[in-house]
Amino acid sequence: MSGDTKIAIVGSGLIGCAWAVSFARGGCTVVLFDQNDETTMHAPGRVRAIANQMETAGLLGGTTANGVAARVRVAGNLGDALDGAVHVQENVPEKLDVKRTVFSELDVLAPHDAVLASSTSALLPSAFTEHLKGRARCVVAHPINPPSLIPAVEVVPAPWSDPEIVERTAQLMERIGQTPIRMKREIDGFIMNRLQGALLQEAFRLVEQGIADPEDVDIGIREGLAPRWALVGPFETIDLNAPGGVRDYVDRYGGMYDTIAAGQRDNVDWRGPVLDRIDAARRAVVPLEEIPDAQARRDRRLIALMTHLRGASRDD
Amino acid sequence: MSGDTKIAIVGSGLIGCAWAVSFARGGCTVVLFDQNDETTMHAPGRVRAIANQMETAGLLGGTTANGVAARVRVAGNLGDALDGAVHVQENVPEKLDVKRTVFSELDVLAPHDAVLASSTSALLPSAFTEHLKGRARCVVAHPINPPSLIPAVEVVPAPWSDPEIVERTAQLMERIGQTPIRMKREIDGFIMNRLQGALLQEAFRLVEQGIADPEDVDIGIREGLAPRWALVGPFETIDLNAPGGVRDYVDRYGGMYDTIAAGQRDNVDWRGPVLDRIDAARRAVVPLEEIPDAQARRDRRLIALMTHLRGASRDD
Repeated sequence: MSGDTKIAIVGSGLIGCAWAVSFARGGCTVVLFDQNDETTMHAPGRVRAIANQMETAGLLGGTTANGVAARVRVAGNLGDALDGAVHVQENVPEKLDVKRTVFSELDVLAPHDAVLASSTSALLPSAFTEHLKGRARCVVAHPINPPSLIPAVEVVPAPWSDPEIVERTAQLMERIGQTPIRMKREIDGFIMNRLQGALLQEAFRLVEQGIADPEDVDIGIREGLAPRWALVGPFETIDLNAPGGVRDYVDRYGGMYDTIAAGQRDNVDWRGPVLDRIDAARRAVVPLEEIPDAQARRDRRLIALMTHLRGASRDD
Repeated sequence: MSGDTKIAIVGSGLIGCAWAVSFARGGCTVVLFDQNDETTMHAPGRVRAIANQMETAGLLGGTTANGVAARVRVAGNLGDALDGAVHVQENVPEKLDVKRTVFSELDVLAPHDAVLASSTSALLPSAFTEHLKGRARCVVAHPINPPSLIPAVEVVPAPWSDPEIVERTAQLMERIGQTPIRMKREIDGFIMNRLQGALLQEAFRLVEQGIADPEDVDIGIREGLAPRWALVGPFETIDLNAPGGVRDYVDRYGGMYDTIAAGQRDNVDWRGPVLDRIDAARRAVVPLEEIPDAQARRDRRLIALMTHLRGASRDD
C-alpha cells in the first residue's frame, strides 16, 4: 500500500490515536481531526507515545516510530481532514444523536467514494445511517481497544450497506495488519460483546448462586481456559479435543452441555446484591485509586503477550 | 514439601501421567497404578516424555526431568500403590459405575486418613461417593488437561465432604504449583465447563443464525478477547475497563448486556444443521487425518505460551 492511501480519523481521543498508529504502520497517510481543540492538541503526542511503545515491543512490522509519526498529522478543520480520504474512521462519543449528526456531516463533506466507518461498540449501524444519501457506503469497523495492539476488528453492515464497501473495509483492515471479522448482518453487541456477555452472564450467576467467589471465576478463565482460546479459539479448541473433531466432541459431551444449559436460562440482575460482592472482591485487590496503575500493568503485560503471540504464530 | 509426601495415581493414562509429573515437580513421591497392564507399561515413558518437554520449556521450576523421573514409579497392584499415600488422584474412565466401584475399593484399601480425589470433569462427586464409609474424605480435583501445563484445578466438595479435606486438597495443589479453585458446592459442569458452555452456546447460536462463520467466532476470541482474559480474567477485565471499576462498568454497559441477554435465552440444538456447518468449516481447515498434527502444533504453542505467561507474571 502506498502512502497516498489517505485515512481520515474523526474523533482523536485514545481510540482515534491508536487507529492512527495502526493505519500509519500499514503505510497509510493519516489525518486526525477532533472538534475539541485540546484533544487535537494532545493527539500527536499520544500517537508518538503509542508508536514508541509498539516499536520497543517489536510490533511496528517493517516501519519505525519515526516512520509512523511522519505519516500522521492533525487537521485544523473537518474539511481538510476529509479531503482526498479513501476511508474515514469515526470515533466520537457513543451517543446516538452525536453519531447521527457527525455521519450527516461526513456524508456531505467526504469524497463521494470514501468509506464511512464507525468504531462504535454499542450502536447498530442502521441506527445512525438510515437517513443518509450515501448510506450504502457506511459500515461499522469496531476494534477491541487498542486496535494498534489487538488484531480483531468487527466489520458490521447495516441492511443497506453495499457488500463491496464491506469487503473493501475488510481488505483494508487486512492490509494494515488487523484481522477483520466479516459479519453477515448487524445484531446487538455484534459478535465479541455477545460472546463476552454470555460468559459474563454465567460468571455473575456463579457468584450470585454462591458457587464461587469472583476471583475463582477469574482463575478458571485466566489459568484454565483462556490460554488455549488465545491460540486456537473456542471452536478449534473443541475440534482438537476429540479424536473425530467437533462432531465427535458434540457426540461425547453434548449431553453434559445440555444439562449445563438447562441451568443457564434465567438472566441474572447484574445490578443486584451480586454486584456488591464482586465490587468488594475487586476493591480488596485493587483500591479504586490504584486502577490506573493496574491498567498500566495490564497494558504492559498485554503488549508483551501480543509480541509473544505474533512471534509464535510466525514460527509455525 | 519433602519426598515422603506420597501420592497414589490410580488410572495412568495421559491425565494420570501428567498429574504424576505435576506432583513430582512439586517434590512428592508418586506411585502410578493402572489395572490395564499395557497402560502401566507405557506410563514411565510417558512421564519421562512429559518431563523432558517441560524441562526444555523451563517449566519444571527448581527440578529437572531426571529429578521428576526419580520420584515416580509404577506399582504392581493397587494395595502397593496406596500404601502410605496421603493423597489419591483417580483418573479412571468417565463412567459412573466404574467410578463407584473404584472409589469403593479406594475407601477400603487406602490409608484411613488419605484424601480420595477424582479427576472427573463430567460427574458430580455426590454421584459416586454417597455409599462410602469414608465419603467425608472424598472430593473432585478436576484439572484442565494437561495439569502439568495448565494451573487451574477445580476442587469440588460433595455435600458430605469435610471442609478440612477440601482445604487440604486445595493447599496441596498450591504447594505443587497448581492454582486451586475452591468451589463452595457441586454443580453440573463445575465452573470452567459452565463458563465454556455459556460461551459455546452463543458461538453455536451466532453460526446457526447466520450472523458469522465459525472462523469469525474463533477470530473474535483468539485475536480479540482471549489475550486479555489470559492475563486478567473476565471480572478483572471489566473492572479495569471503566474508570470507577466494575460498578462503573455495569452502570455504563449493563443496558447493552441486558439487550444482548434478551436474545440469548433459547438454547441451540448443537446436533442440528449448525453442526454440519461447523464441521464442514473445520474440516476445510484441518482434515480429519491431520487432527493429531494440529493437536501437536497446538500443544507446542501452548507450552511456549505458558512459559511466556509464567515468566511475565514473575517479572511484575
